[in-house]
Amino acid sequence: MYSFRNDYSEGAHPRILNALASTNLEQADGYGEDSFSLEATSLIRQQVGRADIDIHFLAGGTQTNLTALSAFLRPHEAAIAACTGHVLVHETGAIEATGHKILSLETNDGKIGPAHIQTVLDSHTDEHMVKPRLVYISNPTEIGTIYTRAELEQLSEYCRHHDLYLYIDGARLGSALCARESGLGLADLGRLADSFYIGGTKGGALLGEALVICTESLKQDFRFHMKQKGALLAKGRILGLQFRELFRDNLYFQLAEHANDMAAMLRQAIQAAGFDFLTQSPTNQIFPILPHWLIKKLQQKYAFYIWSVIDSEHSSIRLVTSWATPIEAVQGFIADMRQYLAERTV
Amino acid sequence: MYSFRNDYSEGAHPRILNALASTNLEQADGYGEDSFSLEATSLIRQQVGRADIDIHFLAGGTQTNLTALSAFLRPHEAAIAACTGHVLVHETGAIEATGHKILSLETNDGKIGPAHIQTVLDSHTDEHMVKPRLVYISNPTEIGTIYTRAELEQLSEYCRHHDLYLYIDGARLGSALCARESGLGLADLGRLADSFYIGGTKGGALLGEALVICTESLKQDFRFHMKQKGALLAKGRILGLQFRELFRDNLYFQLAEHANDMAAMLRQAIQAAGFDFLTQSPTNQIFPILPHWLIKKLQQKYAFYIWSVIDSEHSSIRLVTSWATPIEAVQGFIADMRQYLAERTV
Amino acid sequence: MYSFRNDYSEGAHPRILNALASTNLEQADGYGEDSFSLEATSLIRQQVGRADIDIHFLAGGTQTNLTALSAFLRPHEAAIAACTGHVLVHETGAIEATGHKILSLETNDGKIGPAHIQTVLDSHTDEHMVKPRLVYISNPTEIGTIYTRAELEQLSEYCRHHDLYLYIDGARLGSALCARESGLGLADLGRLADSFYIGGTKGGALLGEALVICTESLKQDFRFHMKQKGALLAKGRILGLQFRELFRDNLYFQLAEHANDMAAMLRQAIQAAGFDFLTQSPTNQIFPILPHWLIKKLQQKYAFYIWSVIDSEHSSIRLVTSWATPIEAVQGFIADMRQYLAERTV
Amino acid sequence: MYSFRNDYSEGAHPRILNALASTNLEQADGYGEDSFSLEATSLIRQQVGRADIDIHFLAGGTQTNLTALSAFLRPHEAAIAACTGHVLVHETGAIEATGHKILSLETNDGKIGPAHIQTVLDSHTDEHMVKPRLVYISNPTEIGTIYTRAELEQLSEYCRHHDLYLYIDGARLGSALCARESGLGLADLGRLADSFYIGGTKGGALLGEALVICTESLKQDFRFHMKQKGALLAKGRILGLQFRELFRDNLYFQLAEHANDMAAMLRQAIQAAGFDFLTQSPTNQIFPILPHWLIKKLQQKYAFYIWSVIDSEHSSIRLVTSWATPIEAVQGFIADMRQYLAERTV
Repeated sequence: MYSFRNDYSEGAHPRILNALASTNLEQADGYGEDSFSLEATSLIRQQVGRADIDIHFLAGGTQTNLTALSAFLRPHEAAIAACTGHVLVHETGAIEATGHKILSLETNDGKIGPAHIQTVLDSHTDEHMVKPRLVYISNPTEIGTIYTRAELEQLSEYCRHHDLYLYIDGARLGSALCARESGLGLADLGRLADSFYIGGTKGGALLGEALVICTESLKQDFRFHMKQKGALLAKGRILGLQFRELFRDNLYFQLAEHANDMAAMLRQAIQAAGFDFLTQSPTNQIFPILPHWLIKKLQQKYAFYIWSVIDSEHSSIRLVTSWATPIEAVQGFIADMRQYLAERTV
Repeated sequence: MYSFRNDYSEGAHPRILNALASTNLEQADGYGEDSFSLEATSLIRQQVGRADIDIHFLAGGTQTNLTALSAFLRPHEAAIAACTGHVLVHETGAIEATGHKILSLETNDGKIGPAHIQTVLDSHTDEHMVKPRLVYISNPTEIGTIYTRAELEQLSEYCRHHDLYLYIDGARLGSALCARESGLGLADLGRLADSFYIGGTKGGALLGEALVICTESLKQDFRFHMKQKGALLAKGRILGLQFRELFRDNLYFQLAEHANDMAAMLRQAIQAAGFDFLTQSPTNQIFPILPHWLIKKLQQKYAFYIWSVIDSEHSSIRLVTSWATPIEAVQGFIADMRQYLAERTV
Repeated sequence: MYSFRNDYSEGAHPRILNALASTNLEQADGYGEDSFSLEATSLIRQQVGRADIDIHFLAGGTQTNLTALSAFLRPHEAAIAACTGHVLVHETGAIEATGHKILSLETNDGKIGPAHIQTVLDSHTDEHMVKPRLVYISNPTEIGTIYTRAELEQLSEYCRHHDLYLYIDGARLGSALCARESGLGLADLGRLADSFYIGGTKGGALLGEALVICTESLKQDFRFHMKQKGALLAKGRILGLQFRELFRDNLYFQLAEHANDMAAMLRQAIQAAGFDFLTQSPTNQIFPILPHWLIKKLQQKYAFYIWSVIDSEHSSIRLVTSWATPIEAVQGFIADMRQYLAERTV
Repeated sequence: MYSFRNDYSEGAHPRILNALASTNLEQADGYGEDSFSLEATSLIRQQVGRADIDIHFLAGGTQTNLTALSAFLRPHEAAIAACTGHVLVHETGAIEATGHKILSLETNDGKIGPAHIQTVLDSHTDEHMVKPRLVYISNPTEIGTIYTRAELEQLSEYCRHHDLYLYIDGARLGSALCARESGLGLADLGRLADSFYIGGTKGGALLGEALVICTESLKQDFRFHMKQKGALLAKGRILGLQFRELFRDNLYFQLAEHANDMAAMLRQAIQAAGFDFLTQSPTNQIFPILPHWLIKKLQQKYAFYIWSVIDSEHSSIRLVTSWATPIEAVQGFIADMRQYLAERTV
């Protein structure tokens, strides 16, 4: 049974394990003030092209989101997110637990733009309602779609004009940036967002996310917030070291490209077999719509999530690839699918 | 320069790194539902001697404390802690950030007992004050002292009688339990505490703490609380695997014994040289009171914290050993100290 | 200029002012333990027909909602409300500020039922999402509609079956219960809800809401929660005394009936003039849809809110009556409206 | 039985009730935007002597404290208070419930000064601890003592120099300012504090506190915070009107002087009878130390709190006077005391 359920089923890229082993007994300062973390910070600054950004390494995505948003917002201020936003739906009210409402925007493709956001601003006019203050987007979104460079430019300009912070959840950021349609690089994010994070957990690390804070006023005392939320690891070295390894050369993006390539192989084969998709995803998560009989057959050899019921005979499923997905698994899936289809046709 | 500053300066015990490497590409379920975590749970249950306890793996101590206490307490309920309590002083208001006051008890040795706690109960009598509901202790305490079996029995009985939960912060639990004076084992904690955690970060792991919940009413929905506080790692496997390795045999306690032995060597040599200590610590943190000239000399070759100024010529320092402290470092420190003393005497 | 903008434009019913004056210099116990509050509690228990309910007097609606919900819910639990719910939209994130998400249900008439709620339960299945635990309804709703007895019975049964608390915001409860279509009395609420509040501020008092807690498990330590949220007034007597006066005889309902009667006069005259309404409201808030020219004319003599734009020539307005609305004001409004229409027709 | 238990046993000064009655049916804007509140604001600004201060009317002291402090502080910032501070001890963790720790300072007279505060700053040096940011004092303190002009000047200067906000809880502010030893007026507070509140509940009103915000950066969006904490009353008029009445002329201070005079009569008589006091209080709360037999006798005719046990034969009691205390009650108490003493001597 091979699993396409998610991109965190395996451990870490071997180079990361090697780096952990080879530095294991070096004594390092605690709480992220070690030399590995400083090196990783320096490498990311170079790739973003700004020496003035702050970078903090945290353990996971929900932790990063809740620490950042609670640090950035005053008590009466709210975040705005797509109705599919991870922070809105799948973090067990983590943001609300820090005291902040998230205003939800209806959207089909997981993306939000100025027009959506304007409806929120129009309806939040006085002190009887929360004050919208931060726009949360995920890139790629939770359903695999991405923001183009033009879309992000426009969104950023809109936010600045309306005194809204733009925050990007980059749990799978590598996959978005490596998608051919994207046209975005880390330097663009550093220019357009107030803060964003570079996901390590789903990008080849054992764990870890690198939060980038671009806007001066958001930087102050951030390590206090981290400590208060339980996000300052005693052995911060193990986060810094992993990001040093991922950004020492192009490893982070190579791994994301591999994941994208594996998803593309699946997508093309499924499309060629005549099936449609729930969303247009150029990233490592795809959502083909398949007949129930085929889903059942595939489930005998492959693990994946049923995403949503389409009609009485079809559902969409979610297939996720990762840095660790072997091409053989993809080829096997495609061959099996073709065989099942062929048997059925006969 | 060798550092005795803390017990989290190195990575992990090599067996843990090996286990990570050898299982790295096995696909595992996410969020702590993997087989490694289940094995670790089973092993810890065996050592505690109770099949009915719940065990959750979290990333760090502050995270564990804030997730547990906020889950266990209702909004108006407060914790009680020694004035030196980690949760009170060194977690940047993490518990208060979840809405709960911590009531502080003055104590010289970092320990609290029924008589202390009774003063709090006596002065908290109605709804104009918080309701004391949970007693937080650290074992060993933040200044290296430990609770004896008799003390813990008495405290536990008192808490049950007064409807107070007893929670034990075990960041360095191995060191406490391995101290000869302790007389306590995991089974005792499982019997006497409502909840406690077994520290991994300072006990040989890269990161990770195992929270044990003994009392039925505190177990419900705990994974919701973990997720909400950012404490449910996608690759929970890496926490489970480390605890599996630490508890697969006696490794956890062997490492703690080594740390204690190294501290004992230092303590005996310092004592033999005629110096006193700030606290009576049988664990891996000791607080000798040394003359300033000697401290200055030692600082040229060894890193450690100055803990407190005693008088114009003496301060106490903190020396911390760990699973990773080589005996050569300890021998070197002792030899150097003796030499400095000898030179001074001449 | 006469205002139909809201039902809190005036002070209090004269009987209440008289009661305040005549008891002014009697010394009374503080914090709601005075004899007036005890009398009021006893009178409300009689009307609800249950001696075992707890009753607390708070200063305002938002305060009551946030104190109750934060006391009733554990950190990971969420409330469910209609998209128009006061608690969701118009309390500046008060509930989220206590740590709880509110899940929003789309609805046109401000009301929610089992079918709506079931969609929430169906989509909240594990610890990655909040746990829905309390259903918040307003009766009357924020747009004047009411729950019938049959609807409330059904909702209550559904909630009990699914382990959901049913909480009723009764800011204008008198108006709902006095509506002919309602069929509900206080005894029904005491039987069907876990908790509800009887609004005083909009029902003839200077300020004050009476929170009723019916369910045993929700009662414990509630005064602690009140104090913590700043809801325990030193001179609680002034809340108790007002409710004593309102419930000493039928005054509370007489005032609500008057408000309803005044709204009915307006409604019938507007309907007779050929205009439609945004919602079917039998209570003291009505939302006629009027042509813009007529709205402009009426605004010269009457204050009211424009509620929503219907089309290029029509908007709905909100007219609110109260215990204090003189029949002359209503007659004046109707006469003026008819005159404007007559002039226009000519 | 006459009660000296507190200064909120009666209703309001008759002029306030008259004002409520005479304006009762005037229609006014809601939520504190009425003309009465505007007038009261203007009158207080005149007395403080600054046109640029913001003034908000809230319902009670705990509500005022929690709304202000949670608005002023960022999540990791803490307040500093005397160990007797109301906000620390007697508000059921209200401040902690908004996420903030309060650091306690030991003091015998309820007052804190630069030297105390410096110890906190010295021990809070990095992100592992909260960041002290606001100094909370009560004037008068909870035990009746007051800050002199020189003390407040010094404290204010210290706070500004160390980037600490100075906040004054003025639940009984009139009593402090009218004490002969004070030398402080509202204008001094407006100059020396960042924010303070003028207590109405204990100063002759039915309820209500006037929060004054002097420092520009603390003013922004304060009404959002009020609404979120349930502190924006629909009929804000009743708060504004009471403060208009209290500050229309010198009424607020006349009432405070009466309370002080009544306490002074008691104090002098008790002193003349040879008894000592727990604290040096020139305000409306005094704490004589009396023999138990005398306390028992007095309790037959007068209600008051036993404050603390001094020795096996003596306790301190608390006697509180107010705007409503009739001189006859004070004279009666004194006469009875003298008689009991005379009888005992015989």
